[in-house]
Amino acid sequence: MHAIGVDIGGTKIAAGVVDAEGRILAQTRRVTEPDDAGSIDRAVADVYAELSRDHEVGAIGVAAAGFVDSGRSTVLFAPNIAWRDYPLRDRVRALIDDDDVRVVVENDANAAGWAEFRFGAGRDVDDMLMLTVGTGLGGALIVDGRLVRGAWGVAAEVGHMRVVPGGHYCGCGHEGCWEQYASGSALVRDAQAALVVDPERGAALLALAGGDPAHLTGPQVTEAAQDGDPLAVSLLAQLGRWLGEGSASVAALLDPALVVIGGGVGAAGSLLLDPARQAFADQLSARGHRPEATLTLASMGNAAGIVGAADLARI
Amino acid sequence: MHAIGVDIGGTKIAAGVVDAEGRILAQTRRVTEPDDAGSIDRAVADVYAELSRDHEVGAIGVAAAGFVDSGRSTVLFAPNIAWRDYPLRDRVRALIDDDDVRVVVENDANAAGWAEFRFGAGRDVDDMLMLTVGTGLGGALIVDGRLVRGAWGVAAEVGHMRVVPGGHYCGCGHEGCWEQYASGSALVRDAQAALVVDPERGAALLALAGGDPAHLTGPQVTEAAQDGDPLAVSLLAQLGRWLGEGSASVAALLDPALVVIGGGVGAAGSLLLDPARQAFADQLSARGHRPEATLTLASMGNAAGIVGAADLARI
Amino acid sequence: MHAIGVDIGGTKIAAGVVDAEGRILAQTRRVTEPDDAGSIDRAVADVYAELSRDHEVGAIGVAAAGFVDSGRSTVLFAPNIAWRDYPLRDRVRALIDDDDVRVVVENDANAAGWAEFRFGAGRDVDDMLMLTVGTGLGGALIVDGRLVRGAWGVAAEVGHMRVVPGGHYCGCGHEGCWEQYASGSALVRDAQAALVVDPERGAALLALAGGDPAHLTGPQVTEAAQDGDPLAVSLLAQLGRWLGEGSASVAALLDPALVVIGGGVGAAGSLLLDPARQAFADQLSARGHRPEATLTLASMGNAAGIVGAADLARI
Amino acid sequence: MHAIGVDIGGTKIAAGVVDAEGRILAQTRRVTEPDDAGSIDRAVADVYAELSRDHEVGAIGVAAAGFVDSGRSTVLFAPNIAWRDYPLRDRVRALIDDDDVRVVVENDANAAGWAEFRFGAGRDVDDMLMLTVGTGLGGALIVDGRLVRGAWGVAAEVGHMRVVPGGHYCGCGHEGCWEQYASGSALVRDAQAALVVDPERGAALLALAGGDPAHLTGPQVTEAAQDGDPLAVSLLAQLGRWLGEGSASVAALLDPALVVIGGGVGAAGSLLLDPARQAFADQLSARGHRPEATLTLASMGNAAGIVGAADLARI
Repeated sequence: MHAIGVDIGGTKIAAGVVDAEGRILAQTRRVTEPDDAGSIDRAVADVYAELSRDHEVGAIGVAAAGFVDSGRSTVLFAPNIAWRDYPLRDRVRALIDDDDVRVVVENDANAAGWAEFRFGAGRDVDDMLMLTVGTGLGGALIVDGRLVRGAWGVAAEVGHMRVVPGGHYCGCGHEGCWEQYASGSALVRDAQAALVVDPERGAALLALAGGDPAHLTGPQVTEAAQDGDPLAVSLLAQLGRWLGEGSASVAALLDPALVVIGGGVGAAGSLLLDPARQAFADQLSARGHRPEATLTLASMGNAAGIVGAADLARI
Repeated sequence: MHAIGVDIGGTKIAAGVVDAEGRILAQTRRVTEPDDAGSIDRAVADVYAELSRDHEVGAIGVAAAGFVDSGRSTVLFAPNIAWRDYPLRDRVRALIDDDDVRVVVENDANAAGWAEFRFGAGRDVDDMLMLTVGTGLGGALIVDGRLVRGAWGVAAEVGHMRVVPGGHYCGCGHEGCWEQYASGSALVRDAQAALVVDPERGAALLALAGGDPAHLTGPQVTEAAQDGDPLAVSLLAQLGRWLGEGSASVAALLDPALVVIGGGVGAAGSLLLDPARQAFADQLSARGHRPEATLTLASMGNAAGIVGAADLARI
Repeated sequence: MHAIGVDIGGTKIAAGVVDAEGRILAQTRRVTEPDDAGSIDRAVADVYAELSRDHEVGAIGVAAAGFVDSGRSTVLFAPNIAWRDYPLRDRVRALIDDDDVRVVVENDANAAGWAEFRFGAGRDVDDMLMLTVGTGLGGALIVDGRLVRGAWGVAAEVGHMRVVPGGHYCGCGHEGCWEQYASGSALVRDAQAALVVDPERGAALLALAGGDPAHLTGPQVTEAAQDGDPLAVSLLAQLGRWLGEGSASVAALLDPALVVIGGGVGAAGSLLLDPARQAFADQLSARGHRPEATLTLASMGNAAGIVGAADLARI
Repeated sequence: MHAIGVDIGGTKIAAGVVDAEGRILAQTRRVTEPDDAGSIDRAVADVYAELSRDHEVGAIGVAAAGFVDSGRSTVLFAPNIAWRDYPLRDRVRALIDDDDVRVVVENDANAAGWAEFRFGAGRDVDDMLMLTVGTGLGGALIVDGRLVRGAWGVAAEVGHMRVVPGGHYCGCGHEGCWEQYASGSALVRDAQAALVVDPERGAALLALAGGDPAHLTGPQVTEAAQDGDPLAVSLLAQLGRWLGEGSASVAALLDPALVVIGGGVGAAGSLLLDPARQAFADQLSARGHRPEATLTLASMGNAAGIVGAADLARI
């Protein structure tokens, strides 16, 4: 059965028809208003109308950043869209005239993780931790071949596991959340702090940022590191270490066979992955008395959200 | 179907016939040698022979402290018994003449957690974190009604989630493991440290320990707290806080509906539970945008290992 | 001998004639331009001209926020004024026609601490730690009756002692500096974080801030605490604890007889001081085998800078 | 004037006649009983009698591990000798028949630091931090050319500055004391932990320890590092980092021109010193806006206690 996956971003949606092997057969996009929930409902119905013209589609999976209830129908809360206890599934359902099409709502990080699990880096394992390193640190957990949703659908908020008591402030109101040490934002802030401490050492980064630390971006750090800039290399290594150390804590709980690292920072390749693997090995409990998880990069790219949402809609 | 649950300790084993409702119909015990793995095999076969005389038994679940492979047959490593990649299931199987009896091996904390989940404090939920506060901090994870075993069977080593970078040394070779802050050993060490810092404040505890801090025990701290000793109350509150704060990290990952706290320290009741609940609420990510797990005490007592092992053998 | 003390702020200077007992005999003010170093030189000379008309003055002490060299003449660096290796003493000296008047430059926190030591809360001790809790955490150290300036004049940057590895980011480019836990800014940020975590608990604070967390101020937290608001009380207690715990670390190094806490937060009185004293006692090393420092509030108020600068100019 | 310096250890005392340039003109030793305070008094008087036969001596400085009151006469508390508020100066004084000889008591780390300051690595500076890395982490502080004794004589307990909240337990009853990260004991414990985590990586260390981790010593770690063993190199680097990071905190308070590292671990040379310097530079507040302290090794060796005690007795 083919299914449509819809990836809802802050200001646009991307959708595609996905077959049972995770291939995208057709794609489309729409611009939306984050403050107008109805515009998103209509856009989803609209892409369904467009894509179902040429493909037989049995289900729609809608993925969005936010807490989705365990019934896969209501968005409890979204940070960037005007959804509060919003019955997204039913709203979309009401705008689609084919009663046989199933509609489900999924958290976007769960969808992306599921795509990696089914068709990407994790297709050979049953237990997997997905880490999506973006502005924050998102993720997904696969336990024994099944997506972990939690009692109320809000599991896998991995970025808010506390890794440093009294640590960096987090937008969630707490201190020391993992994503404040292992995310693109953390990378940039650490780089900016390093520029304050030692401007000379930061010369290459500062040049890439056009002379203004406030304009520095994560990809610039990666670029500098790939050019061999020692500070940038050390910043990516630090990010990698935090990814590896936090993963070791998750491994103590869940014993995954695989940790998949996604997000733009994956472009840093071994500059990120080697320190992550080393730190994971260094911190893994009972090492030597147990098999060890592999850390690897995601392989599905940006389409993971569409593919995963579509595939989950079939289940 | 009735099943036998066997709980293997360092120097003895306890076994019981358990029915489908988790009731123990008969019990027995044997003394064993931790350094002689064969003596344990024989003792398990022996209790089977004894208990199966009067009860029809379809399965045996053997629970032990150690890493059990995901096939539920081999003990990869045990801290207190001479098992290294030991095929416990097959050895026991070979000593039992009834070929139809199924034998499975389980981690003891998993077995106890499963018993709470099926018949005890967690019988009404699908997602649960079990914490067993003993010498260390053990536990079990139930996700969507299923026991989490992990890729290689070594999941739920909750006590080795790192909660303080650079924190207390742990016997596992790492620093800052949760069990170094939330266990009976941590309680006693913190009490002993408090006696050094302020002997006057520790007078009640010191008296209970017969004047020698080295003889202080966890139950004595609980006793003093129940008598209103301010230091003991504060020590239990600190243990409770660490239980609650660590549980909030687990909740960020797994979104359980329930956290069950087991082990002897449960005797402290609300002296432990109230601070644990407060800390959990204080540290729970996205509080207010999501339902919250309940923290409660275990209800199955010492028999949980037998009951859980028996029940898991039926699955 | 009378001396003039000048307290240079970002946009104005305050000056006074101070007698040998620390009394201010006359005062005046000027508005200045932080970006125009010359305007400050002239303003200092100007207040000298005004104040010396009616008082015989032998010395001028100029206090400013910044690093002052150990020769008490050059400002190495100032965060808020356009001084970089600026020969402030000589510039001022050149504008004053009386060659017998001595001019010295002092760090403002040192001046304030010295005033407390000579005429205020510390007048009876020889060893004292002064903590000025403002936007940041400044301070002064008195060892054996003498102001500690350090090898290059930049001692007593107490706010940048690290108290949490991997802790809160600091504007200095490092993590975990004491002032990120024990300052007015920390108080406000912690309050804002608490509003995110539990808006209900923060209702009183939110009301004082006019409904907008971004408008919350430190004095509002103190006001709410004095009205009994539990969250505000707890926030001040946390600030107090960090003051006390950090002071215990300083005490391990310097064994002061007194810790004086200055700055606006002193208005909170025992709401701040009691938790600070408790934390100091709890964390003081070798307690019971040594006498213990007293923690108290500053007594000199805003005039401390003027008085201390004047008095130091006499030495 | 010549003076005798006496260095009191747990089971023996070493003494020498020291001239005004810090040269030792004659030396002697005695065996003592730590539990018999009187035996130490008599031994001190005895070495005086011996050494003063051939040298004209005006003062005796007695150095011991313990808290010495600011009057330099009473040992408030000693960890290894039976002194509690013990009037050591008067007891020794009473046993010496020459009334003109001055007797003073000093903390041993202060004496050693003073020797480095007057005649060793610190002879060219006025502000210095001495760190003595032994079983614990001792030290001395020189501010503006004077030894910092503190209000009650117990300053410079540098090892008990807290560097990690919730960190390693310390014998003092607190957590996270600097000496639990930067001392010979910490080095050995970290090495032992590394052997647990990764026995293969620890093979060289284990061999040096005769196969038993419990027998591992700090000098063995240094030896292995000098032979290029990667684990040992990394352990010394970690110790160095903690020395450097803690020194940066002290520098924020005291702005020393020099940090002198003494104790047996100095044998590791640049394996220790390079990481210490790097970490100091990385963590020094306001770097770039201020001159920076130098980190160097002590130069006086084991005689520092005798020389410093003698020299302080002259002051």
